[in-house]
Amino acid sequence: MARERLLVIGGDAAGMSAAAKVRREKQNVEIVVFERSPHTSYSACGMPYFIAGMVDKVESLIARSPEEFRQKYAIDARTGHEVLEIDPKAGRLRVLDRQAKVEQWESYDRLLIATGAVPFCPELANAHAEGIFGLSTLQSGIRIKEFLDREKPATAVVVGGGYIGLEMAEALICQGLKVSLVQRGKEVMETLDPDMGALVSQALRDVGVTLYLEESLQGFEAAEGRVNAVVTDQRTLPADIVILGMGARPNSHLAEEAGIPRGVKGAIRVTPRMQTGVEGIWAAGDCVESKNLVSGKPMHIALGTVANKQGVVAGINLAGGYGTFPGVLGTAVSKICKYEVARTGLRETDIRELGLEAVTATIRSRTRAGYYPGAGRITVKLLAEKGSGKLLGGQIVGLEGAAKRIDILATALYAGLHVQDLVDLDLSYAPPFSPVWDPVQTAARQLVSQL
Amino acid sequence: MARERLLVIGGDAAGMSAAAKVRREKQNVEIVVFERSPHTSYSACGMPYFIAGMVDKVESLIARSPEEFRQKYAIDARTGHEVLEIDPKAGRLRVLDRQAKVEQWESYDRLLIATGAVPFCPELANAHAEGIFGLSTLQSGIRIKEFLDREKPATAVVVGGGYIGLEMAEALICQGLKVSLVQRGKEVMETLDPDMGALVSQALRDVGVTLYLEESLQGFEAAEGRVNAVVTDQRTLPADIVILGMGARPNSHLAEEAGIPRGVKGAIRVTPRMQTGVEGIWAAGDCVESKNLVSGKPMHIALGTVANKQGVVAGINLAGGYGTFPGVLGTAVSKICKYEVARTGLRETDIRELGLEAVTATIRSRTRAGYYPGAGRITVKLLAEKGSGKLLGGQIVGLEGAAKRIDILATALYAGLHVQDLVDLDLSYAPPFSPVWDPVQTAARQLVSQL
Repeated sequence: MARERLLVIGGDAAGMSAAAKVRREKQNVEIVVFERSPHTSYSACGMPYFIAGMVDKVESLIARSPEEFRQKYAIDARTGHEVLEIDPKAGRLRVLDRQAKVEQWESYDRLLIATGAVPFCPELANAHAEGIFGLSTLQSGIRIKEFLDREKPATAVVVGGGYIGLEMAEALICQGLKVSLVQRGKEVMETLDPDMGALVSQALRDVGVTLYLEESLQGFEAAEGRVNAVVTDQRTLPADIVILGMGARPNSHLAEEAGIPRGVKGAIRVTPRMQTGVEGIWAAGDCVESKNLVSGKPMHIALGTVANKQGVVAGINLAGGYGTFPGVLGTAVSKICKYEVARTGLRETDIRELGLEAVTATIRSRTRAGYYPGAGRITVKLLAEKGSGKLLGGQIVGLEGAAKRIDILATALYAGLHVQDLVDLDLSYAPPFSPVWDPVQTAARQLVSQL
Repeated sequence: MARERLLVIGGDAAGMSAAAKVRREKQNVEIVVFERSPHTSYSACGMPYFIAGMVDKVESLIARSPEEFRQKYAIDARTGHEVLEIDPKAGRLRVLDRQAKVEQWESYDRLLIATGAVPFCPELANAHAEGIFGLSTLQSGIRIKEFLDREKPATAVVVGGGYIGLEMAEALICQGLKVSLVQRGKEVMETLDPDMGALVSQALRDVGVTLYLEESLQGFEAAEGRVNAVVTDQRTLPADIVILGMGARPNSHLAEEAGIPRGVKGAIRVTPRMQTGVEGIWAAGDCVESKNLVSGKPMHIALGTVANKQGVVAGINLAGGYGTFPGVLGTAVSKICKYEVARTGLRETDIRELGLEAVTATIRSRTRAGYYPGAGRITVKLLAEKGSGKLLGGQIVGLEGAAKRIDILATALYAGLHVQDLVDLDLSYAPPFSPVWDPVQTAARQLVSQL
């Protein structure tokens, strides 16, 4: 009997986590991974720091190379190989070897789709001019860095005020550019409530970024195929380089064409075991839908932590075991120069959409005991359900040591705790780390008094 | 009808939190606090940093003065007043005004005992010589600082390797002294398992402290009433100053003499509402017993966070409301120069004492993404119940950013989570804050694989 054959589309977090997990659990299976780019298992989240010059070598961002996978895991990781079609009936993939320019059908017993997400790129005038970059693969990061080193641009416009936009704005400030940021919403970081987003907008201004809020992108101006300005509904901003940080979409067109059911934003629908609606085909990572643990609703989230976890769960099940991925809270954290921003769970607008009513408390405190050197500001906002006091979400903006406190809230949300529980938690305290009432508990105390 | 009269013995964390809470909830009650020392509401935990010279003024450590309590809260906070006797039958206290040297009976309708803890001081030769200090009240901290400034000691011996011993060792190193530490146990920090304690012992050596482990204090040598050496069972160590960090005992002799039931280590036994076994008498803070939330057993813990929370709960109930204090996990954190140490829940020895069996995992990881500047070492140990995988405890030793992760474990323990839940948590991730698998989750993954 022939060895079982597992094919994986996509060689980053989810795909390689799954492949490695299958190999650890099972020896008699052939594992082939097709990755379009030249790289496997890299830290996409590290690219802004590489571009900022804080990380010297791009190789530092690569966790494991194709050679390592081949040698240590007996995984045939084929980079430069693009999958063009999934044929679920015949159980095969049409694969293009991009260098050899050869197409070939590869058959599978089981398939894992881990195609990730792609940055949203609007179809506007000159959108493909030189100097306009999205940030997704390691290659895209390398291209930006090479452009900066070669062209020495002086002015940059970042379009979009999400995590990638903000981290790239910081990176370009670090590289000495004059940076503007265009954001359609009222404040940057729309994963926060606007009152907390306003603190982040101010933090960006403090580090020297010029903000154009409530403006929308209309197009680009270019000369000789090269961008020189960004056009909004209100002005034209000169730009030697443009970074698009307008969000990411699940890269699910192969799945769509193969008739695999999709959900929110076109993300592939999966069971908690990471199985798609088509027998023998599994999916994980930035291309799939995840359940929000607070709302119970499906959502699309493109984050390395989630992709890694889903990859492991897919691997467990593909190896014949039993594992489930419970869902997400949308926990995220970011650093913009000295400022730290974090969020988890639902925003006020999410809570209203569910037909629920929120009680909120926002407090200002310090990251350390007031008298301890380096005590910085921290603002914590908590959201709970009216009446019950069940915790629904939390947001933190502050200086050093502020943001990782979000993990207390992420753990509390996972466990379904109420705000009185937050008050009662036996959290750690010493003057270098916290005031005697941790800011999270100070916020909880205020919220309890409002219930 | 006369106004109800609430008397409080002790004007620090528990006593003043309770008094302030009662006042916020209720106007028509007379509140009198008797505090033996000259200070109210100070940060005992901040004293090592004051002694180290990191905090300039001792006043910075005082949250609220007696005058503030009088003016803002209409609380009659009488410093320099020592309670000598509780007479529960007559509902009165015998109080000494230390300055005026006058004794007086003060009657109460309700009484709160918040007498705190006292450092353990062994009855050994020359134990009361000049230059030997415990650290408890703000006054004791001031006396140490004055001694250092005035006498310029060159060599110090710290007896005891708990938090106070370690933080004082650091403080004295900061002040340029040659510091030795004598510890009876195999490693310092016996609130950790010995394997994790060994990392802290090494950290202390790294910052220049000479350790004498598995040695016990026999006495002191003194000349003209002044200490000049510490005698152990193995050697005599020259010492210009000696700090006793041999643990704290509940200051409960008044309660004992009044026939109020006591428990572990003589700590006052209280209900979850902070009521003692004697009608009308309540107690909170370092002088009472607390329930360990993991073992379910009573324990004595002397920590500012716990004292503050218990004070608030006592205040709610004394004001006629309903509040309970659920218990403690023994969560604690400390910083020794660049090293961070934290713990929560049960140790291996605690688990064995309960007749349970533990599975443990200890992993080494980094505080940030490996490629991000400043990524430091972190060691995480998790303890779970064999079979069920229920989390029972956690310990962390590492560099900057390591220790506050203990709060994830404290929250998980409070919620009764299992190690698989820890793996599934949606914790925050960005390269400046964490590897893509948070070290806590890396440890949980390893533990799951051992269950």
